[in-house]
Parts: sequence; structure tokens; C-alpha cells
Amino acid sequence: MLWSGWGDPAKAADLPEPVRELLHDLLGVRAPATPAAALSEVRLPPPALPGSALARLTGAVGAEHVRTGDETRIRHTRGKSTPDLLRIRAGDGSDAPDAVVLPGSHEEVLQVLRACAEERVAVVPFGGGTSVVGGLAAARDGFAGVIALDLARLAGLRSLDAESMVAEFGPGTRAPEAERLLAGHGLTLGHFPQSFEYATLGGFAAARSSGQASAGYGRFDDLVAGLTVATPRGTLELGRAPKSAAGPDLRQLVLGSEGAFGVITSLRLRVRRAPAEKVYEGWRFASFAAGSAALRALAQQGPLPAVLRLSDETETMVGLAKPGEIGAGEPGCLVIAGFEGADVRARREAAGAVLAGHGGVALGEEPGRAWAHGRFAAPYLRDSLLAVGATVETLETAGFWSNLPRLYDAVRLTLHAELGSPLVMCHISHVYETGASLYFTVVTAQSGDPVEQWERAKTAVSAAIVAAGGTISHHHGVGRDHRDAYAEEIGPLGVEILRAVKDRLDPAGVLNPGALVP
Amino acid sequence: MLWSGWGDPAKAADLPEPVRELLHDLLGVRAPATPAAALSEVRLPPPALPGSALARLTGAVGAEHVRTGDETRIRHTRGKSTPDLLRIRAGDGSDAPDAVVLPGSHEEVLQVLRACAEERVAVVPFGGGTSVVGGLAAARDGFAGVIALDLARLAGLRSLDAESMVAEFGPGTRAPEAERLLAGHGLTLGHFPQSFEYATLGGFAAARSSGQASAGYGRFDDLVAGLTVATPRGTLELGRAPKSAAGPDLRQLVLGSEGAFGVITSLRLRVRRAPAEKVYEGWRFASFAAGSAALRALAQQGPLPAVLRLSDETETMVGLAKPGEIGAGEPGCLVIAGFEGADVRARREAAGAVLAGHGGVALGEEPGRAWAHGRFAAPYLRDSLLAVGATVETLETAGFWSNLPRLYDAVRLTLHAELGSPLVMCHISHVYETGASLYFTVVTAQSGDPVEQWERAKTAVSAAIVAAGGTISHHHGVGRDHRDAYAEEIGPLGVEILRAVKDRLDPAGVLNPGALVP
Repeated sequence: MLWSGWGDPAKAADLPEPVRELLHDLLGVRAPATPAAALSEVRLPPPALPGSALARLTGAVGAEHVRTGDETRIRHTRGKSTPDLLRIRAGDGSDAPDAVVLPGSHEEVLQVLRACAEERVAVVPFGGGTSVVGGLAAARDGFAGVIALDLARLAGLRSLDAESMVAEFGPGTRAPEAERLLAGHGLTLGHFPQSFEYATLGGFAAARSSGQASAGYGRFDDLVAGLTVATPRGTLELGRAPKSAAGPDLRQLVLGSEGAFGVITSLRLRVRRAPAEKVYEGWRFASFAAGSAALRALAQQGPLPAVLRLSDETETMVGLAKPGEIGAGEPGCLVIAGFEGADVRARREAAGAVLAGHGGVALGEEPGRAWAHGRFAAPYLRDSLLAVGATVETLETAGFWSNLPRLYDAVRLTLHAELGSPLVMCHISHVYETGASLYFTVVTAQSGDPVEQWERAKTAVSAAIVAAGGTISHHHGVGRDHRDAYAEEIGPLGVEILRAVKDRLDPAGVLNPGALVP
Repeated sequence: MLWSGWGDPAKAADLPEPVRELLHDLLGVRAPATPAAALSEVRLPPPALPGSALARLTGAVGAEHVRTGDETRIRHTRGKSTPDLLRIRAGDGSDAPDAVVLPGSHEEVLQVLRACAEERVAVVPFGGGTSVVGGLAAARDGFAGVIALDLARLAGLRSLDAESMVAEFGPGTRAPEAERLLAGHGLTLGHFPQSFEYATLGGFAAARSSGQASAGYGRFDDLVAGLTVATPRGTLELGRAPKSAAGPDLRQLVLGSEGAFGVITSLRLRVRRAPAEKVYEGWRFASFAAGSAALRALAQQGPLPAVLRLSDETETMVGLAKPGEIGAGEPGCLVIAGFEGADVRARREAAGAVLAGHGGVALGEEPGRAWAHGRFAAPYLRDSLLAVGATVETLETAGFWSNLPRLYDAVRLTLHAELGSPLVMCHISHVYETGASLYFTVVTAQSGDPVEQWERAKTAVSAAIVAAGGTISHHHGVGRDHRDAYAEEIGPLGVEILRAVKDRLDPAGVLNPGALVP
């Protein structure tokens, strides 16, 4: 993973000249004044960990698994939001952990947590490092130091219950590795978020990830049958049955807890047969409203494709056009419908009838292939845009169908009010019987301090989302960036519940301080 | 509702003479020594509520909505488990509340809870009164009194969002009334547990109910889009979107909380189009194992019928035979598959192919009609069995498919060890991709104190379920009867989470004390 951006540097996507011209002419993008810093130029705080803490950590996991080198610290600094990248590109490594600790077992995690609680060292669980909501920024105030608890050594397929279709994995397993291990058994998780290439299963669970094929396979929280969780106060073992009426579902308290309540050390996950066939196709609708109505019909009456997404007019125009032709023509709104499994043909025909019945025009498989080809590519493009002086960032929400138009308008109006004339694109990529998500991509010219510029807009748009009745996140999570809006969303008593649970499981407050819990 | 038993007294089911003979000959059932008490013979504790508390309650809800008459108190005493019925039939009204309070709004519930917290009066939320796990037995120790908070006045359909397919109901709405109100819009909840005729929507949510058509419509917890909850510390508003990554799902902490954290005062529920057609049919399998494999195939590969249940050999034999023929023939194991909706024929054919492929023999619609006709009848039959001196009770669990045989054996062995030679019947009635529920019905001759006799067996079988890796309840809940086994199931740290949440929301501990939280 590129330390200052996304992914494999070899896959960097250069911007074609017409796009650069367009950014300049339409958005007023100017090249940044200073180039990105080199790794050696990143400014790190001096390592602050007291000797006693370091000794206990090396005692727990072995000296070779406590790392304090500059590059390791930089690679565990923050996540992959645009402000994160802007800061690290500017050489700001101030949020770096003092050490990176790699436990090799559940017992070692327990030991590390106990040691950190007693030594008042903050612990930031670290999976793929792909948080885009500030979930990995270490709070230093009041702590003797900060460690990143890298779960890379707790990886792999530990057992497979083929009868129950449940597989047990270590939390540090990266998604592609999980798919490779399952493919050997003809199985899949079917979980393909945009962060797929780097994110880990533990991270998916801790942050309630949702994949691009969520309509077919469910969100990641739907896939979790059981969890083992290490806390400073001991171990939680959750999930004895698919469903239970034995009290509140405590799994649902750990899912989305973002390392603030404990560290997930094992996951029992639902697995599915790998699909025999996958077909993705495109449909065009005259408007976002017409496309939304079609998606709603599929969600409420079926048949639901495994992948179902609708781009609004702007996203369709930018996404479909060739670089030299952006703005020409009137492409309407693009729907991608993907069918996976054994009976693709029948379901495709039935879904096609619903889409056509709502005014959709079939575009065949070409747009589907193009979408599938580029499905993990957007973060690479962001690096190229940042390099030429454009800020590009994404944000998302979800709501009930009847509230989506209000949410859509609220976000767009606020972004325009805050950023002048940004490019704002939107798609629906996750649908349910009762509602859907809205995912926005914003491109704007950098002005002044680009981090401050974005954070001002982000604060306003978060408030607008909550005021319009949406949730502050459908699948990015809370972290630090959404914490205030989240408090607004769940109300003072909701916040007190979180604090009560945290106080009980983590009385010293060392687990990911500053994230999630207001 | 019959105060000393189940349902409409006019529907009482008399036992045919051959069944009485069989109970006598096979199980050694003898008529009970004493007949059931009359209503006027039930012994009630003198009302204990201090005048100050009574004044605040009447101030909150109006004098006409605070009731202290004997019959009202008796009708709010405990629930409908077999021990509950045995006790009340014996004239034991010792668990009666001092008063029954009927709030008319969310604000009135808040006022009642604040008053009770300050006056140290225990509050037992009361919906349909159908708990079978001791969820309504009032703990008196340390309290100035106990009230039943009857939610009957908070009933009805409050609003309907037809676009999002979400309906808002008051918690005291009885299930048949909810279905009647929705039918006017061509909609249904599709939630039909055995308690359907009396249970309320708030109770379904608070106890994580599961209906007979759960495979088609989902469990009740799946239907809950949003909740309003009144607590002694204020109000919780939960559920802004179908799904969210904004932290833990706090709805899942209220679902299954059984009145120990707060009182649900509003539910936003997923609704579905009322099915155009319903067809239920029977299939015979050679063994429980063969039938289980067929159900597993449907759950994992589809198509999943809306109703899907499999009776073991004993339940099939007792259920299918005419009274004079019980024990004759070898009926194997009966599967009921029910198809509801618009494309019944196609799904029925496809499911039939799977069932036949696993060795099932189609029995046509007659067994399906018989099942549908008697689907809410079992509790009536229990009253008749209790009257002749047989104890009959049900218990249930759930587990992953690979663990079901172990759970099945553990429950049966324990019941036989504890009760001599009881009749033990079992069915699978709720299936998931990863596992299923097991529902047991036990019939035994009463011996000594029948309550003690059953409670001894129940304690042993609960321990056996937890030891065998199952959950202590798939859909009955925890109440007081499962509290110890539940503590075992979630472990000491799980218990601490519950206590932390309860302490924060209900610092005086007045909410349904003794239930759920160990």
C-alpha cells in the first residue's frame, strides 16, 4: 500500500490531458504550491512510550513484534480519507503511533490490553488501515503513549463448518486472501467493498462494512455469525445460533464499535457457494427519480440483483463520457444490475422486466463490464486528482425511500453553499425494502488550506444529513470525523449507553480513544 | 383471555376418551387431587402501593387508568407458562401487581417511570400477557410496590409510509388488530407466532418473537425499522435508516430487553403486500435426519417456503394419528411447507424438486390445511391436559446445523433422565442458512408438586442446552426462567454489559426487576 495514497503504486492512474483542462476550466483547479513530501521528509513526533510499557509489550508479544521504525510508524498513521492523504502528503506525521505491536494470539491481545490499561497507553486496533472517517487517528491527550495494534499476524482461515456454511477467520485476514482461501472450497464471502484489495475482515466487522454486492450477499454485519472479542476486562464469546431470543443481540453492540469496546480476535462468518456465473449489465433511465423508483420496485418486489446501483445525472455524465466528450450529450442516469449464482438467466429476465416496466432502456453488458473492470479503481484516481490540486472526497448516508429526495437535496445544496461550484456526483449502491444509501463524490478546486477547506464543508454537510433525518454513515463508520454528528443522531441517552458499555469494558479508556464514543 | 389458562374459553378443546386412556396407560397420568380454583378463590397479597405513589400515578395517567380491583390484578399476574398456569389454577396469586396502570401517551409513560423510580415502585410492562418464561412475574424485594404497566391504550396504526413500506404502531396493538388495520391497505406484517391471537407488537419486539412464517417474512426483530423507547432517564429514538454503519445498532439492544431497559412506546415496522395466494402442503421423510437435510438444502440454496417445519418421528406420530390409532403405523417425519405470495406455483415446484431430491414423499395439501387449521390451537389443548393431571410444556433452542443433532440428543436425554418416561416431541420450525431452531413439547404425568417437578426438569434441560452449545431461547425469551442459563450463555462480561446499560438507563432498578438481567 502506498504510504501517502492508495494501493499499489504501479497501478497509479494518470489523468488524461483533457481531464486536466476540464478541471482547470470548469472547477478552477490550479496545481498545488508545494509537491508531496517524500517519506524521509515526514515529520514524526519522538517516540513517547515509557520503558516500562515497552518492556511489557515486548514481554507480551516478543521484541520482534514491537516495531518502532519511522517507516512502520508512518505506514500506521491515520487512514485513507482525503484529509488523511492531504496531511501525510504535506509531511504531517503528527498522529503517528509510538510503536506498532503485532500480537500472535487472542491471549497476547488480552495481555497487551491489560498492559496498556495499566500503563495508560492508548491502543488503536489496525487492520487494513483503510478507514476514511478518522478511525485510526490516535488521541494522545492524557496518555503515556499510543500504539497501533496491527492484527496482521491473526490471519487466515481457522476452520470451516461446511454443513452450517460458517467459516472461522482471524481478524487480520485481508479480503482477497479470505476469498482465495474460500475459493479452494468452492465458497465465497461475496463481500467486495471499494477497499477490498486492502481491508481486513476484522475491520469490516468493526466498522459495519457494506460491499458492492450487498443486495446479493448482505452487508458484512449480516455475515457475522459469531465473534470473539478481547477487552481489557477479559473475553466476550458471542453467537451460539443463527438467531436467538436470549436477550439483546450483543454481537450488534460489537459490530460498529470500531475498536472502542474491544478487539475482535476471531470471526465466524457465513459463507456462500461461489457463483457459477456473473453477469453485469447497464440500463439507462431518464432521471434519478425514475431510476430510484425502479430500484425500489426491485428491492420491494424482487427479484433483487446481487449488484444494484444507480448513478445520478452528473455521475452518469462524468462516468460514461470519454474524456474529450464530458458534458456532451444527455446520458440520463445509469443503472448497473449484476446477477450472480446458478439461475442468472431467469433472474436477469425477471429483473429486466421490472426495469423496463419503469422506463429503463437496456444497454447490454458493456456498461456492466466497464463498471466491474473499474470497481476498485476510484481511490487510485483520487491520488492523481490530489496531485494536480483538486480535492476529491466521498461521503454517504442512508434513509427510508420516502426521505431520500430530501437527503439528496440537503447534501447537494450544502456542498454547493460551502464549496462554491464543486462537482457533486451521487449514486445509490445499497438498496433495502425500506430504503437505500446515497453515496456522494465531490470534486473541488483546492483553496487556502485544503484540509480546513474540506473539514468546514464536511462539518456542514454532516449537520445537514442529520437534520434531514438520515444516518451519518451507511458504511464508512463514525471514527473521529463523524463523532459529533453521530452524537446528534443517537441523542444524549444513546451516547450514555455507549459510555456505559465503554466504561465497563475499558475502564481506563485506552481503547481507540477519541473514536466513536462522544 | 381465560385468566387461568389460554384464550377464549368457548374454544376449549376437550380430550377425546382414547387420548385420556392413552395418557393413563402410557404415561401413568392420574387426575389431579384438587380441582382448579375459581377466580374468587385466588389468594392475592394486600395492595402495597404507598399513597404517595398512587397519587403520582393517578396524577400521571388519570384515576380511571389506575386499577386495583382483584380481577384486574389477577389478570395481570404472571404469564402463560405451564408453571404460571399451575400456580394460578392452585389459587396462588402471590405475584399479582398492586395496581395496573394504563398510560395514554409516551409522555405519560415517561411520567410513570419517573414517579416509580423516585417512589421505588417496580414496573412490569404488560402487553398481551403471553410470556412463557416468567417475564411478567413481579419482584417485590426491596420495592415499595409493583405495578403492571398495561400498554393497551397505546394501540393502533399511527401512520403508514407506503413508499418505504413502513408502518408506525403503538406497542399495545394486538397482532390480529394490526393485521386487520394493514389488510385495509392490502398489507401484512406476516408475523404469526402461536401467541398471535393475544400478543402485542411491543411484546414481539421486547421479546424477539419469531412467527410461523419466519422463513418468508423474517423474525420480528427483522421487521423493526425504528423504535421509540421511554426510560426513567428520558427518551431513545432509534432507527433513521434501514441499515447504518453509525456505530453499534442500538435497536438490537432494545430488542430482547424485555422491559428491563425501557418501555417501547412506538414501533416503525416493515410491512409487506398481503399475499395473493397461500398454499401449505405436507411431505413425508423417512427420518428426522433426512428431513433436516432437506430443510437445510432449502435454507442454503432455496427456494425457501414462507412456512417450513419438520416434526420428528414422535411428534409426527402423535400429530398425524387419529386418537384411536396413536402408535399404529410408521408415519416417518412430517414436513409442512407453506408458500405465500404471487409466484406460489413456481416456488412450490422448485422447492418440491429439492424436497423430493432429498427423499421426501409428497402428501399433498391435506396435511398443510390441517396444520394451518390448528396452528394456534396447541395452548388450548394444554389447558385440557392440565385439567386431567398431565403436565405439558414446551421449550426451545437454536444452533448451527452441525450442532443440531447434539442439541436434540442433549434435550431428550435430559428430559428422560429427569421425568422418567415423558412423551417428548420435537420440531424444527425456523430455518436459516447457518442453522435452525428446535422446539420441544413434553407431556408427563404430574407427580408431587407439579410446579417443582417441572422446574427441576427445566433447570436440568436449560443447563444441558447451554452445555451443548445452543442458545437458551430461539423465540421465547429470557424472563426469570432462563436468567441463570442466559448468564451462562453470554458469560460474565456479557452480563456486565447488560448491567452497565441497565444501571445507566434505570439507575433505581425499577424496570421489570428480576427479569433478563442476572
